Amino acid sequence: MSEFKLIPNEENEAATARLLETGAKVGADAYQFRVKNQTPHCKFGEQGICCRICSMGPCRITPKAPRGICGCDAHGIVGRNFLRFVAGGAATHSDHGRAICETLYHASPDGAYHVKDPDKLIRIAKEWGVETEGKDIYDLAHEIAYLALGEYGKVFGVQNWLSRAEAHTQELWKKADIEPRAIDREVSCSLHMTHMGNSSLPEALIRQSLRTGLADGWGGSMAGTEFSDVMFGTPKPIDTTANLGVMNAENVNIVVHGHDPSLSELVCDYAEDPEMIALAKEQGAKGITVSGVCCTSNEVAMRRGIPMAGNFLQQENVVLTGACEAIVVDVQCIFPALGPLSKCFHTKFITTSPICRMPDSDYIEFSVGTAAEKAKQIVKTAVLNFKNRKPELVHIPQLKSKATVGYSLEAIKKQLDTVTNSQVDETGTLKPLVDCITSGVIRGAVAMVGCNNPKVRPDSAHIGLMKKLIANDILIVASGCSAQAAARVGLMDKAAKDLCGDGLKRVCELADIPPVLHMGSCVDISRMMVLVSDLAKDAGCHVSQLPVVGCAPEWMSEKAVSIGNYVVATGIDTFLGVVPQVSGSDQVTNLLTGGIRDWVEAAYTFEPDIDKLGDEMIERIEEKRTALGI
Amino acid sequence: MSEFKLIPNEENEAATARLLETGAKVGADAYQFRVKNQTPHCKFGEQGICCRICSMGPCRITPKAPRGICGCDAHGIVGRNFLRFVAGGAATHSDHGRAICETLYHASPDGAYHVKDPDKLIRIAKEWGVETEGKDIYDLAHEIAYLALGEYGKVFGVQNWLSRAEAHTQELWKKADIEPRAIDREVSCSLHMTHMGNSSLPEALIRQSLRTGLADGWGGSMAGTEFSDVMFGTPKPIDTTANLGVMNAENVNIVVHGHDPSLSELVCDYAEDPEMIALAKEQGAKGITVSGVCCTSNEVAMRRGIPMAGNFLQQENVVLTGACEAIVVDVQCIFPALGPLSKCFHTKFITTSPICRMPDSDYIEFSVGTAAEKAKQIVKTAVLNFKNRKPELVHIPQLKSKATVGYSLEAIKKQLDTVTNSQVDETGTLKPLVDCITSGVIRGAVAMVGCNNPKVRPDSAHIGLMKKLIANDILIVASGCSAQAAARVGLMDKAAKDLCGDGLKRVCELADIPPVLHMGSCVDISRMMVLVSDLAKDAGCHVSQLPVVGCAPEWMSEKAVSIGNYVVATGIDTFLGVVPQVSGSDQVTNLLTGGIRDWVEAAYTFEPDIDKLGDEMIERIEEKRTALGI
Repeated sequence: MSEFKLIPNEENEAATARLLETGAKVGADAYQFRVKNQTPHCKFGEQGICCRICSMGPCRITPKAPRGICGCDAHGIVGRNFLRFVAGGAATHSDHGRAICETLYHASPDGAYHVKDPDKLIRIAKEWGVETEGKDIYDLAHEIAYLALGEYGKVFGVQNWLSRAEAHTQELWKKADIEPRAIDREVSCSLHMTHMGNSSLPEALIRQSLRTGLADGWGGSMAGTEFSDVMFGTPKPIDTTANLGVMNAENVNIVVHGHDPSLSELVCDYAEDPEMIALAKEQGAKGITVSGVCCTSNEVAMRRGIPMAGNFLQQENVVLTGACEAIVVDVQCIFPALGPLSKCFHTKFITTSPICRMPDSDYIEFSVGTAAEKAKQIVKTAVLNFKNRKPELVHIPQLKSKATVGYSLEAIKKQLDTVTNSQVDETGTLKPLVDCITSGVIRGAVAMVGCNNPKVRPDSAHIGLMKKLIANDILIVASGCSAQAAARVGLMDKAAKDLCGDGLKRVCELADIPPVLHMGSCVDISRMMVLVSDLAKDAGCHVSQLPVVGCAPEWMSEKAVSIGNYVVATGIDTFLGVVPQVSGSDQVTNLLTGGIRDWVEAAYTFEPDIDKLGDEMIERIEEKRTALGI
Repeated sequence: MSEFKLIPNEENEAATARLLETGAKVGADAYQFRVKNQTPHCKFGEQGICCRICSMGPCRITPKAPRGICGCDAHGIVGRNFLRFVAGGAATHSDHGRAICETLYHASPDGAYHVKDPDKLIRIAKEWGVETEGKDIYDLAHEIAYLALGEYGKVFGVQNWLSRAEAHTQELWKKADIEPRAIDREVSCSLHMTHMGNSSLPEALIRQSLRTGLADGWGGSMAGTEFSDVMFGTPKPIDTTANLGVMNAENVNIVVHGHDPSLSELVCDYAEDPEMIALAKEQGAKGITVSGVCCTSNEVAMRRGIPMAGNFLQQENVVLTGACEAIVVDVQCIFPALGPLSKCFHTKFITTSPICRMPDSDYIEFSVGTAAEKAKQIVKTAVLNFKNRKPELVHIPQLKSKATVGYSLEAIKKQLDTVTNSQVDETGTLKPLVDCITSGVIRGAVAMVGCNNPKVRPDSAHIGLMKKLIANDILIVASGCSAQAAARVGLMDKAAKDLCGDGLKRVCELADIPPVLHMGSCVDISRMMVLVSDLAKDAGCHVSQLPVVGCAPEWMSEKAVSIGNYVVATGIDTFLGVVPQVSGSDQVTNLLTGGIRDWVEAAYTFEPDIDKLGDEMIERIEEKRTALGI
């Protein structure tokens, strides 16, 4: 019998309860209380049948009022709201990608940002037909960055990276007329279509939802991932730790939170600066610990092994430890609650981006030109704040897991190379994985992604499903808050192989990997899209035929729905544990859970019963296997 | 005493009541009934304090629940909703502008679209620094169209046309950091800022609202106006008629509705085709009457004198006449109700744009390549439908007014030239108007714009305010549904001068204009921006010093708020008769009605009491006069 044990969810919950006691002492609010205040939610909103798109209303659909003032019915209203939700997510991911491209455009050998992976840059240049021979790598970086920025607003044509997809996928996109044009154009077009007095036909609205999602996954998000790799290095396996216990009561604790690594990378650099460490010691600390929350955490964990304090619903907890000198945020998924909460402690809540301006924060605007200076200022602010800590409020839950992370597609291929026979086998492919799947040693793979949502007991769905899946010999690739949920309890510890079925366990041992592979932040789901496309190419089948599904059991953000749309549009059945706000229209629901299969060979399953959701995924995987005759 | 009389609102209302009787016979629904079903509206939505931006909620602010689950307070929620409202409007107008640019890009001497105003094209080319010498006009058109399309997605820099603004305005924009970059980028950026976990600081959200509005007014909308002029001709004074009585019971009636003139221009062409007229006669009709609803109507009235059947809230009425063979729509402000309504009659409801797909319509997709063929098919479909008319349902209210329309900025300047002394005065300027204002013969000018909204007795605010203003010697420039309200009752009849104060009456006589000048559709409010900028230049003062205000007393759409934002951001105080959904935040309300004055020297006034609204506008105009010492 294995000795290996995960941290039980109950222990995590007890830790949260203990932190809320600290909060109670200082009169702090917390999301748990706000959830109570906001429950029950508005039923019209939950079903998607509230329309606030013009000021004749708001309108809401009831049996007695089956149409809004303009005459739009439930199907039109639900479809419009859904498309706008997707557009919000696609715009958000893609604007993050744009910021990365802009940073690369300003990279220079003696500036704050460098080209750390020139090979990857050259690979992309060749893909895009850009001459690389004899070019200075920074000139090339600027040229490619400019072209990448052009993808947001190109006058004609579709996204460059669509050509990475498997040929059949590309044909489907063309046929369904969902190849995304300029990224920002798809966002604007979505708002136009949903403006008062435009489209109310569900089919048209859902088609544009898929196109807009693709603009994100195969456009903006992919740019975010690829050029972050170019600048900060393509992730490779690295050991780290996770859970609140990574914070260190004796050290200055800086928590980085958000999504864009441009800020956090430099914060990490300066936290290692001997001058800063000396300053920390002067203040009475033993050193400086940087840990992360949300996707910024994933970014710096994947590339530098920076420990992960927690995911989305842990963001208040890091402050409630009383040991957080500064929570430094860039963009997205930042609770505005951190403003008032930080005021209950000595914690500095430092906002840095014009995109994310919040009351009750210290705003230190961060930009490419002043990055080094501002990062230093931020670290110094945190260090000098150590002396303001109130020792009686300090309590860091002693929960910590080991994790091996850093599984970019490149890293996965490299890891697979270790199990090939270099004398006879081709290297740098996914064929060993294809072989494992074909033979049935691994039954299939699930991409576990997405957020936390208080509508689900936090992390329980992520962890419950992963345990079930790996026990059934299904490999997990994970990203975002789902990946952090896994890391927090120990599922990214290589020892977690002991929780797998015999087949997957064997593979983990041979390939020296944990059963849950951390592929990065939420924009990095683009890595998974290339992974499945390459897998289909190497397996000689279509993406939709692979025994592979996607799952976001606790999603909450618009970004998650945009992701869902590009995942299904890529041919991967997608399983959601939180039902999108579309239940008010059977037409829209039927399209999403079935009708779109005619266009993209995949569709959604909505199932709030998480156990059932797991069973259905396993069933789907086995169906795909049967269809392939494996 | 004058003999001239406007059509009283009561007569228009009686006509509507009579049409609803026809509707009752065939079981038709109507917006008046839907308004009843939808009243009272959701108070949370009305105040802007309902948040549906992520799926943790929906959340709504109450005294007991002062923050959403993420911790966002009322100010953040209201500010985000407002910015998204603006982004929806800016995207919509601008995407219309983009379609016009794309059409121009495909214009050709033997195609369906031509360059009708080469002088204007050359003027724009010179403004943009494009060499024109020796170039074929179509080559130039394609070059300029491509550059214009580039304004939607340019990687660096701000909108080209900002340089048209008065110098001080440009300085204010720069200082306030609200110069719009690529049009679509501002839309995406707005969605990003308002995504879960980003900006919740009202100041940041309202600043971006202004920038996004400017991307519309000085970007996308201006492109829509300018390149429509290039292709279809710059409007000049032309006589037409307005109100439901323009429909002709003996003719085939085709009603064009929407916003983009590319479709309606060709429909008008084919309706004049002898072959089609002969076909109509074969069907038993005497001929073909094309009339318009909404801004498509404004477009073809301004350039071709096509009669205006009605504005936004008349769209169901044209079908209820029982004499409408086809209502042909392009994009925006189309009631989805027209689908089921048309089924109660013989009327064909023809949708044509992928942007505007609606159930219960005949979809005849219209594109640049197939424009001629499709326009012909549409006209033919209407003509052949004449025989299906049910005579017992036919009733066209006999209400009709004369109107002189077509007052583009160029036309206004030309009209003013007629009162200059060509021996001594400069021509082609607004100086005669400046002189009138300075001397007090005209006290000032009001831009009357915007929609209808059932929250206001239809047209009553438009008409009531215009009567009051012209009686006070205030000149009106009007566009959109406001202009149509004026035309319907007779305010664009030159004889309406008799309703003016002595000063304005004199000016109308001398310049041979009506007291309410029709400047076009809602995108054409861009004409007004150049008008006021040129006026300020000619007067030697700042825009904000001019005795000029803007007013949308019955607005309803996101576009209207986007317009409002670029009008105030241009330095013009803007008066709204319907309160935007911001009342749930005093911080946001105070910014919009006061705080933004620090940035742009103008702000909003919200006042649902229309009489008061008029008084306040007159007061503001007089204050500006006093400040100028005139």
